[in-house]
Parts: sequence; C-alpha cells; structure tokens
Amino acid sequence: MVTMRDVAQRANVSIATVSFVINGTKPVAPETRARIEAAIEELDYRRNVVARALASSRTRILALLHPDFEARPNATVIQFVMSAAHGARERGYDLVLWPVNDDEQMSHLLAGGLVDGALLMEVQIHDSRVDRLIASRVPFALIGRTGNDDLPFVDIDFATTIDQAVDHLRSYGHQRIALITQRTKAAPEKEPGRIMRAEAAYLDAMAALGRPPVVISVEGTSAGGREAARTLHDDHPDTTAVILVNEGASAGLVKGTRALGRGVPDDLSIISAWTTRELGEMMEPSLTVMAAPAAELGRLAADALIDQLEGVQDAPPHILIPCTLVPGQSVGPAPVRP
Amino acid sequence: MVTMRDVAQRANVSIATVSFVINGTKPVAPETRARIEAAIEELDYRRNVVARALASSRTRILALLHPDFEARPNATVIQFVMSAAHGARERGYDLVLWPVNDDEQMSHLLAGGLVDGALLMEVQIHDSRVDRLIASRVPFALIGRTGNDDLPFVDIDFATTIDQAVDHLRSYGHQRIALITQRTKAAPEKEPGRIMRAEAAYLDAMAALGRPPVVISVEGTSAGGREAARTLHDDHPDTTAVILVNEGASAGLVKGTRALGRGVPDDLSIISAWTTRELGEMMEPSLTVMAAPAAELGRLAADALIDQLEGVQDAPPHILIPCTLVPGQSVGPAPVRP
Repeated sequence: MVTMRDVAQRANVSIATVSFVINGTKPVAPETRARIEAAIEELDYRRNVVARALASSRTRILALLHPDFEARPNATVIQFVMSAAHGARERGYDLVLWPVNDDEQMSHLLAGGLVDGALLMEVQIHDSRVDRLIASRVPFALIGRTGNDDLPFVDIDFATTIDQAVDHLRSYGHQRIALITQRTKAAPEKEPGRIMRAEAAYLDAMAALGRPPVVISVEGTSAGGREAARTLHDDHPDTTAVILVNEGASAGLVKGTRALGRGVPDDLSIISAWTTRELGEMMEPSLTVMAAPAAELGRLAADALIDQLEGVQDAPPHILIPCTLVPGQSVGPAPVRP
Repeated sequence: MVTMRDVAQRANVSIATVSFVINGTKPVAPETRARIEAAIEELDYRRNVVARALASSRTRILALLHPDFEARPNATVIQFVMSAAHGARERGYDLVLWPVNDDEQMSHLLAGGLVDGALLMEVQIHDSRVDRLIASRVPFALIGRTGNDDLPFVDIDFATTIDQAVDHLRSYGHQRIALITQRTKAAPEKEPGRIMRAEAAYLDAMAALGRPPVVISVEGTSAGGREAARTLHDDHPDTTAVILVNEGASAGLVKGTRALGRGVPDDLSIISAWTTRELGEMMEPSLTVMAAPAAELGRLAADALIDQLEGVQDAPPHILIPCTLVPGQSVGPAPVRP
C-alpha cells in the first residue's frame, strides 16, 4: 500500500506539500506540482475516498440536488451541472448530480457523511428541502431563492431581466406587452421561485408604464404555447408583444400564432426569457431570447459553496445575474392598428 | 446513537428484516415495511453511508460517467440520467451523474471505493475509459458499444433504426437518400460508436438497394446544418431525402435548405434520427424523427448493472433497442424531376 509519505519522498517534498496538491487546499508552484504528480503516477498512488472520509470527515464531494421530475427538464439544467462541476474541480472537489425526489431520500444522503456540501436547484418559495438542509448542518448554497433572502444563494436577476426585455420591446414601439408564465401542477407555494419573481417584476414594469398587465399561465409544452396563442388572439387582441418565461411553450406559441393567421414579428413580437441561445436559433424565425447565465451561475454556485466550506468568507453569498439579450428575428416594430 | 437493532425492537421484527427494507435487498410485506419505516422515523435512525461502506464494502451508489465536454450535450442525456436514476432507486440504489473529463480522474473515482458500479456513456469504438473500468474491477455496463461486443452493454439498434428510416422514405417514393452524420474534433477511433454504426447500417441499406451512398459529415451545430444544405444543393442535387444522425444540425439543415429556395418536404424530405420527439415538434415544419429510446435504455442499463452486482445473471447483458419512428411534417412524396 503506497502512502502519501512515499509520494513525498519520491518527489523530495514535504508530506504537507503532497497534501496541498492532492486536496487542492493551497496553491503549489507548477514545477513542484508536476514533480508530485509524476511521483503519484509512478508509484500508482491512489487516494481512497472512503478511508479518507473517515479519517478527515471530508470527502471533497459536493452534490447538486435536483428534483427527480417526470417532465422533461429545462435545457439549461445540464449547463448548470457541467459548469458547476468544472468550477468545483478547479478547486479540488468532485461535483455530482444527485436526483432526489423526496425529503426522506435527501435526509439520508445528507446524514450519510458522503458529501461535504450541497447545491439545491429548482428552489421553491417555501421549500421543505431547504429546512432539511438547514437541519442537516451540511453547508449549502441555493441556485434560486426561497422567500428568505438571508440564505446563501445565486440566482437570476429577474427584475433586471424583465426590465431589459420591456425596454427592448418599447424601443420598437410596443405598448401592449403580455407575460406568459409556466403553470405547474404544484400548489402555488411549491412553485419555483422564478415564476413568482418574473411575474412581480413584470407587474412593476407595467405599473411604471401605466399599462394594464396581461399575465397568461400555461403548461410548459407545445400545447401550452398554442393555448397561449389562442388566449392572446381571443381575449387580448391589442397585445403586440409578449415576454415568455416558459421555454417549453415557446415553439408552440410561434406555431399557434401563425396558425391563427398572425405573423411573427409582423403582428406579434416575442422575447423568450430564461432559455438558451441555441434553442432560440433553432426556431423559425429565430427567437430573440434573454439567455440564462447558466454557465456563470453554476460556477459561482460552486465557488460560493466551497468558499463556505473553506471558511474563506464571512457573510452568506447573495449573487444575482440578469439574463443576456440575444437579438433574433422575432422582435419587430409594433404594428400600427387602424 | 440509534442502531438497526433499536429499529428492529421498536418495529417488533428481526434485524434482518430491517436490513431488507433499508437496503432494498429482499421484498418485505407492505404492512411490515410501513411499521419499520415508522420506527425509523420515530427513532430518527439514519444510515451512515460512509460507515456502512467500510463495514460492507458496499455503498449502494452507482455512477453514471459522462464526459465533461465543453460543447452542449445532446437533449437525450438528461433523459438517460433520470430514467437510470429511477430504475436504480426502485432497486435500492442511488445513481449519480459524475462528470469525468480524463482517465486519471476516473481511476481515482473507481479506486476510491465510493461506487459499487458504473455506467459509461458516449462510448467510443476504442475507449481507454473502458480499459480503466476493466482494470478497476468495478462492475460496469456500457450505454453504447466499443468494438468488443463481449462487454456488457445496452445500445441503440442502429441497423434496424436506419432500415426503418429508409423504408419510410422509400414508401414515399424516395430513391436518392443521403446520410448526414456528425463530425467531431476527435480522431476517428475516438468518435462515439453511434456515428460509425449508423454509417455502416446506411451503407448496407444503400448497397441492398443498389444506390450510390452519399455521406456528409458536419459539425453538430446550426452552422453545420447549413453547410450540409449547401453541400447537398451544390454536389448532390439529385438527392430527394436525407437521414440525419446529428441532432444539433437539424434546425440548420431545414433553415439552410429553405434559404437556398428549396422546400421541406416539397424538394427535400428529412428524418432526424437519435433525437427527441419534443425537439422534432419544436421545428417548423415539425420534423419526422426516429426518437431515441433514452428512457428505456437508461432503465435497462441500471437493471443490467444491478443484476451483475447482485449475481442475478450469468452472461453479460447485450441489449439493443431501435429508435421509434414519430411522423412529423418533414417527409413527403419524392418530387418528380423533369
């Protein structure tokens, strides 16, 4: 059994320096690091994660907890995961995606001593999983927010995102702007916080403009998008532009609008918020999107969690980043109505 | 510290029965299970994963290893993960998605005693990660295949998938059918096996029909799709139908074809294979797809791995499932050329 001492002797450094490299706990000069890595390779030294966990009560494994839903997940999820995993690895941690579908399962995971910290996605306004996290004393950070802004979080800045979308539409002359959100099967307090926050930001923006708000809530599916197109057509014919916070309904909205004989953007301009650039490009016409900063947020979430674990920071992190406007072909001048 | 013995006494059952429930190793009558679960809850008994791992050399954790690529992943990946996690959980295991970007990192994970078994995705024809898995003696199953069909695998049946796509196009009168595959930056032997297998199946089908094959390889992006449209237009104007095995290029192919003044499906019929039903529905016109059986394969892969772990089976599993034809609006009668 090769030990860390053997590696230190072979590389002609102290055991502490080997530990710094292996555990990523302190920066080590590139040359020294290379020598240590060569020694590890030559001696075929392998860290035993389980044994190390018992010895140190640390596993250097982080879990990204994601609800194990039946519906198809948002395209941004995998971007979060991969960028958080990258960020964690650069600091010497492994990050895994752990599908959890109930509180009980989550408690087992947290009590098992297997992970040093956790990131939680799809955070709800009142979220019992957050209570479990607090009770478990496992350090955590949220991707999203509950109603309690004192907890550590990184999130999308919905207020700025919606304001920018509204400003973009107003610069094309639009005055009647509707919001299309996602209807979930969950009780209102169990909904992802983003739906409530996007709606609040939209209502504020309309109040500031002195315009009556129109909020339409549909399923995150093609059928949902077509339903929204019909509701707009039948009940809100004055509407000339919409902001979607419902990625899954975006294609159905475009198709449904056209099927009703209305052009995009000639009769209706569309901005899809909280989605990806790639999804916008796939559509015909290509959609103007507010691209979610999934890669940035994933990395920042990993950093925020590791900062807590390593005692680098005092206050819990509160990070907000807006989505980025990526113009496509779905926004045009407001039609002049006779 | 509450032990399993305490739970057994409270529930008035044997320690073995408690173990069956906790570890999911044997079925237990629903009433007995409910009593044991109530006792676990009342006593606040928590399993300690790390301690149990040391005691039993089992963690009941499975890793789904996925390359930690920079490019955006295929939409089917998350379906694989979630369905494999579901399947594993029903048998008492946790499954996590573990992004790994090099062999060294994978060896550390496998040597750490942390996971009981591994599933490997994006398998290449010659895959050094598979060599690492074999050397580690950690039980595994592949989602995909190397050149060695003796290893345990579940995979898409590309031969049947391509045959069905060709038959569907021929039933509309198409004779000149091209294949569009995905060009990767990897060396040929490092490419995912699906590219080679889809191409081989296509070449066989064309040979059987006595038609010259046309294979176009482009990047899995919108730009790649537009490049394929130009190549078809300039170099293969006789082609009336294409089969895509390149999800990321599908939208660009449609848009690029139309930009060149050709209609879909009036001038060119398109089938997109190895993709999702949802992605096909998003397009305009909606794409006819061969939907990847991601949910089925994810679950079967988990089952195949757990069967190995529990000694349920003798021979390594070899499971092939074809994609499912989902007709859209992108396939029509072959145009009659003057």
